Amino acid sequence: VTPSAPGVRLRFDPDDPRTALAAWSRLAEPGDEAAADLIRRMGPSRALRAVAEGTAGSPRWSVRLPHLDPMRDLTTVRTFGGRVVIPGDEEWPSGLAALAGAQPFCLWVRGPLSPAVAAERSVALVGARACTNYGHEVALTLGGGCADRGISVVSGAAFGVDGAAHRGALAVGGATIAVLAGGVERPYPRGHDSLITRIAQVGCVVSEVPPGSAPTRWRFIERNRLIAALSRLTVVVEAARRSGALSTASRAAAIGRVVAAVPGPVTSAMSYGCHWLLRERDAVCVTSAEEIAELVSPIGTDLPEPPPYPRAEHDGLPPDAIRVLDAVPLRRPAELESIARSAGLPIATVSAAMGRLDARGLVTRQPAGWQRSPTRRLPAQSDSEQEPNG
Amino acid sequence: VTPSAPGVRLRFDPDDPRTALAAWSRLAEPGDEAAADLIRRMGPSRALRAVAEGTAGSPRWSVRLPHLDPMRDLTTVRTFGGRVVIPGDEEWPSGLAALAGAQPFCLWVRGPLSPAVAAERSVALVGARACTNYGHEVALTLGGGCADRGISVVSGAAFGVDGAAHRGALAVGGATIAVLAGGVERPYPRGHDSLITRIAQVGCVVSEVPPGSAPTRWRFIERNRLIAALSRLTVVVEAARRSGALSTASRAAAIGRVVAAVPGPVTSAMSYGCHWLLRERDAVCVTSAEEIAELVSPIGTDLPEPPPYPRAEHDGLPPDAIRVLDAVPLRRPAELESIARSAGLPIATVSAAMGRLDARGLVTRQPAGWQRSPTRRLPAQSDSEQEPNG
Repeated sequence: VTPSAPGVRLRFDPDDPRTALAAWSRLAEPGDEAAADLIRRMGPSRALRAVAEGTAGSPRWSVRLPHLDPMRDLTTVRTFGGRVVIPGDEEWPSGLAALAGAQPFCLWVRGPLSPAVAAERSVALVGARACTNYGHEVALTLGGGCADRGISVVSGAAFGVDGAAHRGALAVGGATIAVLAGGVERPYPRGHDSLITRIAQVGCVVSEVPPGSAPTRWRFIERNRLIAALSRLTVVVEAARRSGALSTASRAAAIGRVVAAVPGPVTSAMSYGCHWLLRERDAVCVTSAEEIAELVSPIGTDLPEPPPYPRAEHDGLPPDAIRVLDAVPLRRPAELESIARSAGLPIATVSAAMGRLDARGLVTRQPAGWQRSPTRRLPAQSDSEQEPNG
Repeated sequence: VTPSAPGVRLRFDPDDPRTALAAWSRLAEPGDEAAADLIRRMGPSRALRAVAEGTAGSPRWSVRLPHLDPMRDLTTVRTFGGRVVIPGDEEWPSGLAALAGAQPFCLWVRGPLSPAVAAERSVALVGARACTNYGHEVALTLGGGCADRGISVVSGAAFGVDGAAHRGALAVGGATIAVLAGGVERPYPRGHDSLITRIAQVGCVVSEVPPGSAPTRWRFIERNRLIAALSRLTVVVEAARRSGALSTASRAAAIGRVVAAVPGPVTSAMSYGCHWLLRERDAVCVTSAEEIAELVSPIGTDLPEPPPYPRAEHDGLPPDAIRVLDAVPLRRPAELESIARSAGLPIATVSAAMGRLDARGLVTRQPAGWQRSPTRRLPAQSDSEQEPNG
């Protein structure tokens, strides 16, 4: 960082840190670590003065310097019912600290939800804009399921997975954060105007760039780091080979957050990125909101109920008893000795096992020996390979 | 192991190890480690004599001892064009050694394929009998793809995934091994009579129990360890919560083989077991035969081609150039200085970046400045979140 610009007269008083940080958010692009470094060393106000005086700064800031007007930006965001949140504010999400030198200068925020509170238990649900019906359904279900469990849904308000995730949360009256690449007063994409407006009414819309800023490529790329940093974990719902969602996953991994992926049909190109994450990046395989809740919460709390499953009739029987059961005929009774031969077990063992099988109602004593009880058909989803006597 | 039976006169000469091991395969059930231990210490012939004399043995063997007739079993298997393979034979698959004390006594084999050769580069493709169309399609595709790559397909000839995996291999004239829970001359399930007969004609049908043996529950359970041991890795294609395929996966893991799972829709109960393996058992996520080949082959050989993917126009550009590209207007040319202000970059940087963008055909010089070149539409599957200037 070397002096490069001649002195410039600022059209505002940079001594208020909020004003200074608002100015920095227009002066430097997202993720500008030289700016972050200067602010860290000098504080935002002194750093701004130094740049204006030409005693510090990067040539890339000087072109914007004469046009800075943070008071106008602050007025604009207020017109839209919004505010600016800076580090140290109660509303500043602690998770952003993980970005270190790439922390945003400030957050431009709309909506009644505090980003700090919402980001405390949160999940990023991200994925393909051109998602399939499957991805749409899963995003909607996971969004609703997470919100139902008190987990905020963070996403980018894009078409496809992002929108479905936000809508899933909104539909159950849950918390959701939309992180935009452009100004918060400027819903993008246009087709999500009403969705983003709704989130601004009941949830939280945030951006690191000031009102009026266009959502450029660069800002989309850097926006993804905010989505990652505002979430306890990032779940990729559907992603093609080159999806932006993979960039969010990579930013999440870079700051040490858990990355998860929802599997899908291997025949679907829209699940390619998810399977790649599972295979090459050790992503956690996630199939339900319960599993997400388990990852968001400290270990041991909020564990999902073990799902009930159908029992096979031989469940829990010791190996000998299973072999005896195999050997008891279905259609006519047999003597203990014949059963013992068939099972390859001594008669004493067979006799003991028979008592156990009888107690479970699996065999019936007849005058001529033992016989299998009439079969209780197992539920169809019991797909065990274990067959009755062939 | 204590003496328990009175002396029994064997109806055959146990001195030939092949005859003795054939007898053991009828005397003791699959996985009987006491029998394996006795054979390891005394050799199969002496061990058999000791059991007949009542000086060694388990009570569970004595009930079958008087009925042993291995010569008849050997004749029967020959009638079906089969043979018995014992440890030390050229056809004995080396991979079975991983089973240690649970090694089979012998293998009853039908078909022209040597189990030793076929198991050298092999994959177990296993899964639900009640599979979905998706599971069926994937098993068929993977079976064919693996066989095409010279990888033998090992499975259990069951309905559903198993059958489709075998058929996929057969359809491309590839190698496949069917491991049965009952006798090799007794196709089970009956509905797969012609499939198993076909495998016996061109591939390999194996079992550790002698001809005439019924496929009991116990033998199904133990059969799964053979499928695992005959394969370099086990891939579960579809599996419900309690699928027998999960037992095969567990046996594979127990002997240190790689376990992989094919993901599917999270909305499908038939993929539950696969996702469980991915999440809870660190199974490898597998989506194609190429990926299986990579796991079967020594690392570094047989790597899949990196799939070609669509390039975005800004691929490989440095961040500054992306920001400059963002700032060049689409509809009317702009001067360098205006572009620099919009990009937040010094004019020198913008000028240098412009040369690079010009060389890639992304910008065009006009009398009044620079303008974006007419857009080359990106392929639809480029699902990057990076948007043009909004």
